[in-house]
Amino acid sequence: MSTRRNIIVGQSGGPTAVINSSVAGVYTAAKELGFNKIYGMLYGIQGLLDEQYVDLSTQLNTDLDVELLKRTPSAFLGSCRFKLPEISADPDLYEKIFKILDKLEIDVFCYIGGNDSMDTIKQLSDYAALKGYTQKFMGVPKTIDNDLAITDHTPGFGSAAKYIATAVKEVIRDSLGLSYNKENITVLEIMGRNAGWLTGAAALAKTEECCGPDLIYLPEITFDMDKFVEKVRDLVKKQKNVVVAVSEGIKLADGRYVCELSGGGDYVDAFGHKQLQGTAAYLAGFLSEKLGCKTRGIEFSTLQRCASHISSLTDINEAFMVGSAAVKAAAEGNTGKMITIERVSDDPYRSRPGIYDIHDIANNERVVPREWVNKDGDYVTEDFVKYAIPLIQGELEPYMVNGLPRHLVVKK
Amino acid sequence: MSTRRNIIVGQSGGPTAVINSSVAGVYTAAKELGFNKIYGMLYGIQGLLDEQYVDLSTQLNTDLDVELLKRTPSAFLGSCRFKLPEISADPDLYEKIFKILDKLEIDVFCYIGGNDSMDTIKQLSDYAALKGYTQKFMGVPKTIDNDLAITDHTPGFGSAAKYIATAVKEVIRDSLGLSYNKENITVLEIMGRNAGWLTGAAALAKTEECCGPDLIYLPEITFDMDKFVEKVRDLVKKQKNVVVAVSEGIKLADGRYVCELSGGGDYVDAFGHKQLQGTAAYLAGFLSEKLGCKTRGIEFSTLQRCASHISSLTDINEAFMVGSAAVKAAAEGNTGKMITIERVSDDPYRSRPGIYDIHDIANNERVVPREWVNKDGDYVTEDFVKYAIPLIQGELEPYMVNGLPRHLVVKK
Repeated sequence: MSTRRNIIVGQSGGPTAVINSSVAGVYTAAKELGFNKIYGMLYGIQGLLDEQYVDLSTQLNTDLDVELLKRTPSAFLGSCRFKLPEISADPDLYEKIFKILDKLEIDVFCYIGGNDSMDTIKQLSDYAALKGYTQKFMGVPKTIDNDLAITDHTPGFGSAAKYIATAVKEVIRDSLGLSYNKENITVLEIMGRNAGWLTGAAALAKTEECCGPDLIYLPEITFDMDKFVEKVRDLVKKQKNVVVAVSEGIKLADGRYVCELSGGGDYVDAFGHKQLQGTAAYLAGFLSEKLGCKTRGIEFSTLQRCASHISSLTDINEAFMVGSAAVKAAAEGNTGKMITIERVSDDPYRSRPGIYDIHDIANNERVVPREWVNKDGDYVTEDFVKYAIPLIQGELEPYMVNGLPRHLVVKK
Repeated sequence: MSTRRNIIVGQSGGPTAVINSSVAGVYTAAKELGFNKIYGMLYGIQGLLDEQYVDLSTQLNTDLDVELLKRTPSAFLGSCRFKLPEISADPDLYEKIFKILDKLEIDVFCYIGGNDSMDTIKQLSDYAALKGYTQKFMGVPKTIDNDLAITDHTPGFGSAAKYIATAVKEVIRDSLGLSYNKENITVLEIMGRNAGWLTGAAALAKTEECCGPDLIYLPEITFDMDKFVEKVRDLVKKQKNVVVAVSEGIKLADGRYVCELSGGGDYVDAFGHKQLQGTAAYLAGFLSEKLGCKTRGIEFSTLQRCASHISSLTDINEAFMVGSAAVKAAAEGNTGKMITIERVSDDPYRSRPGIYDIHDIANNERVVPREWVNKDGDYVTEDFVKYAIPLIQGELEPYMVNGLPRHLVVKK
């Protein structure tokens, strides 16, 4: 690629607190490498199909804007949940996309997303190979769920984990302060449909001055209601105040999600995933009935993925790094690949970008290994903690304006 | 009071992010004024009845400890929800309390709490007057609900408001980033049984770069389900993405809480208040059914009162100020009073402590005045915003240890 032309970047899937730091990384690297136009597609591939895009140089006028972008949660450019059909099922759609790319003189296409979004990169690069198109397609990893294959971890996870551990510490203080001579059970519901990385991050709350949650249930382990009630009953007898962290995706032996027991799980998204909600509320009610004591259910909800006011600097920097590395890799001729994060060392923590064939990554879910969960299936091990703790280190203070974090929004 | 002896401080009711800053204020002022022992009762008056207390000088060894205390959420000393009976109903209980105070050689008794807790100060000071006891009883205001009478506002409110406004901004970014060509309704549930101060604080999210919530429903205004659905229906047609903030305490014309429609509101606490939960989930389900589009309910839950990682410096400083002022007022001979906050000016914002007879404060709830809610009853006015905005200003960064905010805990 001797004369570089234009590059386009898009965001896809559920946003994170640091997904925009990857846009900043793409933008910064593309500028350094002398790309002409740096476009941002609005609302991912779905918006691009409607020719919705912006020239990022009109959005990021100063270095301050780039810094503000790093501190802005959710998808700055807008995201989508749009799964490309198989090439054979709708070749016209693919032709349409490539016509738009041609019109914009795009050489490099970077897509920031999770599992489902990496499938988009796979399909587009396959189609380009099939048709002899020369555009390069690069995947930039992103997901709070940390469930992408091959990469050591995924940008977005560290900040979500930091938010969760902080919130768990605060909730534990709250419940301990109110539990004099009285039983008190708190059930915390944490995101993660099939992978328990985030729920496991609740264990990080266990620090010198905080006992951490008492029990942690990941979706990887079949949830046994009776065993659960007995565990909590024993703990309540012993210590009165009990805090339990559960994944929204915990399932019974018969395959039903726990949240379905209360009538949740009805809504199905564009990727065919059930929307899970209500697990904590259901379990809190169930425990209250069985054990006759005060319970409360707390759903950490959307804040897990958008609380940029307490994001991890390590995470922000790595999100930037993978965005930047994707551009460099494409400039060197790579396509159909995803940038990974390789862990170089634990202490001091160091990482570097790697690169991997998208075919080995797309649509593969990486779950918490069984050996990182204790024998009883109700807590994560020290190895899990050792893995996760470096990822929540450091802060990038928000820019506070009039008492609130300032965000960058697209000028249309 | 020429020879000062000992002082005791306690915390009561639902904690806040800054309730410990008031303990720091009491401790610092008591040291300055030369009190001998500075005790902290554990778990408020309930713990004191069991002679549960600590010597604060053993807990706060250095100025760093005092600073850490200001950054610790929830009740450092432990709290209780314990309502003293009428004096005539149980004089023995009062005698028991005064015997313990005598034993500890207490001159001054400071109690940090909200409405129900100020009643404790009223009863104890009344009993002392009745019996000719010389101890001084002072109330230190605290409540995220901001519903105490007389005082301009209440410590705890500013930090909860700052958390709420920050979270609302982040959730709005999240929902806007995901709402391309598709309807998306978010219902946010905010604390406040009878007073809508906190729910109104959602309006602070409306800033240069953020549209803020579209509708805000306070418990002061009767909630009309049909009108609500029509409002949301119109908004969804017009702008696709709709964010609504509701108080947990919104009620229908027939007096039922909205959350009761889904079977919530069963649990009743020691003060006789129903535990409200599930309003957002109920309304989200209801809207989804009526309007046939994607909805989600988000309960801000306990984090509202314990998110010390983003507390307001103004709030922390005022919490300290009222604690300190209570000690000074008692040293000057006051009893049966609560310290208030008087607003001196809006811009630049300045405040000072005042003092007021506890009889005019205890058990009185201050709600949002009707003229600070718009005509339709679905948003707060500019006057509300002007009132609340100074209270969320400034930050006191948490002390981060290994990636997480450090808290101070009682050494027992």
